[in-house]
Amino acid sequence: MLIVMRPDATPQDIEQVNAEIRRRGWQPHAIPGGTRTAIGITGNRGVVEPEPFRVLPGVADAVLISQPFKLVSREVKPEDSKFQAGPLVLGGKSIHVIAGPSSVETRDQIVGTAQGVKKAGATLLRGGAFKPHLSPYEFQGLKHDGLALLAEARRETGLPIVTEVKDTATLPQVAEVADILLLGSRNMQNYALLEAVGEVRKPVILKRGISATLKEMLMAAEYIVARGNTRVILCERGIRTFETMTPNTLDLNAVPMLKSLSHLPVFVDPSHGIGMRKAVPALMRAAVAAGADGLLVQVHPDPPRAISDGHQTLDFPEFEKAMDEVRAIAGAIGRDVARLG
Amino acid sequence: MLIVMRPDATPQDIEQVNAEIRRRGWQPHAIPGGTRTAIGITGNRGVVEPEPFRVLPGVADAVLISQPFKLVSREVKPEDSKFQAGPLVLGGKSIHVIAGPSSVETRDQIVGTAQGVKKAGATLLRGGAFKPHLSPYEFQGLKHDGLALLAEARRETGLPIVTEVKDTATLPQVAEVADILLLGSRNMQNYALLEAVGEVRKPVILKRGISATLKEMLMAAEYIVARGNTRVILCERGIRTFETMTPNTLDLNAVPMLKSLSHLPVFVDPSHGIGMRKAVPALMRAAVAAGADGLLVQVHPDPPRAISDGHQTLDFPEFEKAMDEVRAIAGAIGRDVARLG
Amino acid sequence: MLIVMRPDATPQDIEQVNAEIRRRGWQPHAIPGGTRTAIGITGNRGVVEPEPFRVLPGVADAVLISQPFKLVSREVKPEDSKFQAGPLVLGGKSIHVIAGPSSVETRDQIVGTAQGVKKAGATLLRGGAFKPHLSPYEFQGLKHDGLALLAEARRETGLPIVTEVKDTATLPQVAEVADILLLGSRNMQNYALLEAVGEVRKPVILKRGISATLKEMLMAAEYIVARGNTRVILCERGIRTFETMTPNTLDLNAVPMLKSLSHLPVFVDPSHGIGMRKAVPALMRAAVAAGADGLLVQVHPDPPRAISDGHQTLDFPEFEKAMDEVRAIAGAIGRDVARLG
Amino acid sequence: MLIVMRPDATPQDIEQVNAEIRRRGWQPHAIPGGTRTAIGITGNRGVVEPEPFRVLPGVADAVLISQPFKLVSREVKPEDSKFQAGPLVLGGKSIHVIAGPSSVETRDQIVGTAQGVKKAGATLLRGGAFKPHLSPYEFQGLKHDGLALLAEARRETGLPIVTEVKDTATLPQVAEVADILLLGSRNMQNYALLEAVGEVRKPVILKRGISATLKEMLMAAEYIVARGNTRVILCERGIRTFETMTPNTLDLNAVPMLKSLSHLPVFVDPSHGIGMRKAVPALMRAAVAAGADGLLVQVHPDPPRAISDGHQTLDFPEFEKAMDEVRAIAGAIGRDVARLG
Repeated sequence: MLIVMRPDATPQDIEQVNAEIRRRGWQPHAIPGGTRTAIGITGNRGVVEPEPFRVLPGVADAVLISQPFKLVSREVKPEDSKFQAGPLVLGGKSIHVIAGPSSVETRDQIVGTAQGVKKAGATLLRGGAFKPHLSPYEFQGLKHDGLALLAEARRETGLPIVTEVKDTATLPQVAEVADILLLGSRNMQNYALLEAVGEVRKPVILKRGISATLKEMLMAAEYIVARGNTRVILCERGIRTFETMTPNTLDLNAVPMLKSLSHLPVFVDPSHGIGMRKAVPALMRAAVAAGADGLLVQVHPDPPRAISDGHQTLDFPEFEKAMDEVRAIAGAIGRDVARLG
Repeated sequence: MLIVMRPDATPQDIEQVNAEIRRRGWQPHAIPGGTRTAIGITGNRGVVEPEPFRVLPGVADAVLISQPFKLVSREVKPEDSKFQAGPLVLGGKSIHVIAGPSSVETRDQIVGTAQGVKKAGATLLRGGAFKPHLSPYEFQGLKHDGLALLAEARRETGLPIVTEVKDTATLPQVAEVADILLLGSRNMQNYALLEAVGEVRKPVILKRGISATLKEMLMAAEYIVARGNTRVILCERGIRTFETMTPNTLDLNAVPMLKSLSHLPVFVDPSHGIGMRKAVPALMRAAVAAGADGLLVQVHPDPPRAISDGHQTLDFPEFEKAMDEVRAIAGAIGRDVARLG
Repeated sequence: MLIVMRPDATPQDIEQVNAEIRRRGWQPHAIPGGTRTAIGITGNRGVVEPEPFRVLPGVADAVLISQPFKLVSREVKPEDSKFQAGPLVLGGKSIHVIAGPSSVETRDQIVGTAQGVKKAGATLLRGGAFKPHLSPYEFQGLKHDGLALLAEARRETGLPIVTEVKDTATLPQVAEVADILLLGSRNMQNYALLEAVGEVRKPVILKRGISATLKEMLMAAEYIVARGNTRVILCERGIRTFETMTPNTLDLNAVPMLKSLSHLPVFVDPSHGIGMRKAVPALMRAAVAAGADGLLVQVHPDPPRAISDGHQTLDFPEFEKAMDEVRAIAGAIGRDVARLG
Repeated sequence: MLIVMRPDATPQDIEQVNAEIRRRGWQPHAIPGGTRTAIGITGNRGVVEPEPFRVLPGVADAVLISQPFKLVSREVKPEDSKFQAGPLVLGGKSIHVIAGPSSVETRDQIVGTAQGVKKAGATLLRGGAFKPHLSPYEFQGLKHDGLALLAEARRETGLPIVTEVKDTATLPQVAEVADILLLGSRNMQNYALLEAVGEVRKPVILKRGISATLKEMLMAAEYIVARGNTRVILCERGIRTFETMTPNTLDLNAVPMLKSLSHLPVFVDPSHGIGMRKAVPALMRAAVAAGADGLLVQVHPDPPRAISDGHQTLDFPEFEKAMDEVRAIAGAIGRDVARLG
């Protein structure tokens, strides 16, 4: 950390900062400048809290130099993370596509979707059994029955299951069925849930909070990894901006940025990312071209009849066509789209 | 809800929308226009989901007309809510000021602060025992011991206690000690916690999420009230914007807007709202002038030595001076600042 | 437009709205609902201003149904616009890449860059002669001399010239030299300049304002087209969001959205869009995969020595490699990258 | 400026940075740390451009320490600026209220408004003659005739005139009539206009751009002051955020922040700042309580019939009541509201 003094700071002010630094067992390093002095700190372990310094007399600012995340950073582990998720290996050269409906609705719907998306080339099935919703009066999912239907769809098709975990109380039953846990945007800073998920031995897709910075997202991943669960996938899913024509703004800058900062795989959810059915394939292509390691796509046999998210959900023919394009894009950049078994 | 058709929608498209509306037992009302047709819906109870309509052929958009919140809205209850919180009545003409440190640190610190803020005119003591933090490596609070110290400060001064509830697991022990529960920004859409807090018979301060719209905030309050806990206080605490000079942007527009939409009391937290110690008093004054029913202010005997949030925390002389100003402002608009006992 | 009445609106309130509508020579169409009435308007030409209605007693809201832009919309002209820019045709199946430095610096720099980017496959040269800058103390460009150097680079290589027009006073001299005018982000709502550019017979690249909605951008294009200059290219270049790790957030959602709303070609500037040299190629690929008709890329022989924007500027080897990738992506989606001559 | 090296930077990388610094005639100051080195710079005059350093090998970041604005900063001039505007002195203990319609419409409207707002205690009249508008098809103002009507209203009431300057072409005629020039949000970074206004000998109200940071706003003011016009008033008028319930979010944090950074007077426009007629008085009170030196308020004899901005415009009784409240607030903080003559 660097302490920047005000131009009118007195020698006494500077000495008080130095004394505070030394009191903690660290060393101050003054850099006198034309109009002001800056003071560097060395000898610390872990993060230096800027606050106790910001409030000292004569201090203009305290600037963090090191990143606060450790275990998830490339500085700690330079090579890409690759890990097992059910029968699959995520994080390598092959791109994985997770597809399925927002909500599990019926046996026919989920098994039919599993068959449809498998045929088009998806390697994992998504479907929500426990649904967090803005309104207490909206559909909250089929819950335990939904999990059972997901398991049945897996038996029928062999596709591993990705489903959302909504809270700590229902985590055990979700973790029993799911091959990969999905931690939704609204829970990205639910620390109790992050810690609980860190104790589970299942991979986790961590979706970016709707207004979370990339740094905050990496800190949330750090919570999970610090508890021992190293199989974390970072997922960009659109952020909240001033633009109102699309419900979210997909931030594809996040893909190269996260991949340069972290060794974890980076997935993209273009369905929530643009929130417009007709435009989802364009963003599937763009995400892969930007370097994403996987996609999360909403697919339903009959989107207008879907209980939730129909406006951003593809039907089978749209998904098949989009998968052909995604394969072509992957090939153009020296990657491929994984196939099951 | 209103369904807006595209200019090129066919009569068949329009008939299909009408059929969908009738299928649900509602009535469609077409309004033919110069270039396009719009279709109104009547006969529904509760919210109409726009999604199933947005995806029909020929539909340009589906526009919500009614607000989705009910129990918290002024349409349901026109007069201001007033309720008991410990020995106090919140929500009336008198403004309540809650003051205290970000974190409970020691017995001397919290009892001393309670005495200091009581003397200056605060009617409630705040202090964090369970602290949610961005980093897994930061101080997480004194937990159970912190609660005990808060209870001691209450015994010494008579000030009721406001403290944060961080997750469902620790809610019972927090609710046993606290007079008012504080639900922090990052938990505003933690639905499991909202529901759990809805079952508790203690008032709740619901802080606005850092990027929550006012509508989302009112929906979060609706979750609590729908479970039977009607003693909810809405708290504006600054939102995330593009501005980087202050950590948050205090949205005082929220005060008149929330008060016109809802009957619940509206408080403001200027400490987080501007995040700059020297500027906190200006925003305390502005919040009261805008019509806030209460304030939440960080105060510590020695802010530079505070474990957390020292950069936005007042010391006793600063708080006393700010309280004098707040009393003058309250008087100027025909209100007063409540006093204990 | 649709006028939505409050639940407590009286019949008199509704009649007053109807009278206001009729007073303008239009027809009101009431849709009575369960809790409130909505009133549609027909018979108007052009945009209905919502304001005079919003302020009438009993009115809850006035909702715009039609888009306010006309000449630039696909409703008016369903097929893609294609037009001549110097010797090139923009807007068709072939993707055009505009490359060059932020600022024209010297003859060697700009002629050398023109040769370098031409060799790698760019079809147009960019370079700033008149530079708008945040600070009055920064470099403002070589101005007239810069234009002369651009003309010389064109003579040497045959590449048409794209350069920024900063204000109405210097527009005539810029328009004399440029093959395409570049209207920068900060000028997107400079209406005097939009109107002046609308009178010029040169194509214009209109860059999105840093916080402009897509609708505002299309309205700015409407200003130019309404004056008779139909050769407008829309350019996404990153927007301002809460994320601070990248200076801007490239909004690739804008590509399919703009292409569905408007017939104008859509280009993308990934250099400003991510603002990080190493990540620019990833976003060049993503933009083309998302459907962009062209790219605007900053290239300099020696980025660390560039007068401006060096941190987001590619050198020749980086640009050549990125162009190879862009060609592969274009091929994968059935397009190609245009070549000169 | 401070150059922060990457943990894996080599001694050669560090030496190259040092050499670059020395090449410019400045001195590098290395601060070796536990995991990385930082390098300070001294001996420079003016701003150090971070870009040439950010792109050097081994450099992680380049952090600006000094603020880039000079003439408008309190470091240069510690005491508040006070200056003449027509017969008034702005910037002192007395708060000035500027009131009037968005657009000048007719003689009766503007003279009547001038009389109405003068009676209620306004000291300046606002009214738009040249109106910038989102759409080329909207009302653009009465232009020259509007200026003549403003002059007539001044003759009738003695109120000095505040009116918007839209572009450089119409600046001379506006400056001839106006007592204070109003530079609107969309023109805050119109550098040609800032420079032209800097040459005029009339005070200028500089409104914050809808997504301008406070630093950018101060840089825009610096452009005007650098040309010799030191009579600049900074005006907060609401920023663009994710919140959609209000058209803008009034940022009252800006008031104490701007006043601590700059010696210029700070005004607030609550009409645009909240965009809701009923809520404007609450924000007028809050702005004064936060420390604003003046207000800019839209008032019209019959807001529902106003050509523009009627939804955020007060009528005379509302304005009179609000002025009474503002006077009470001003008194409560030891200030007063100025009166004419």
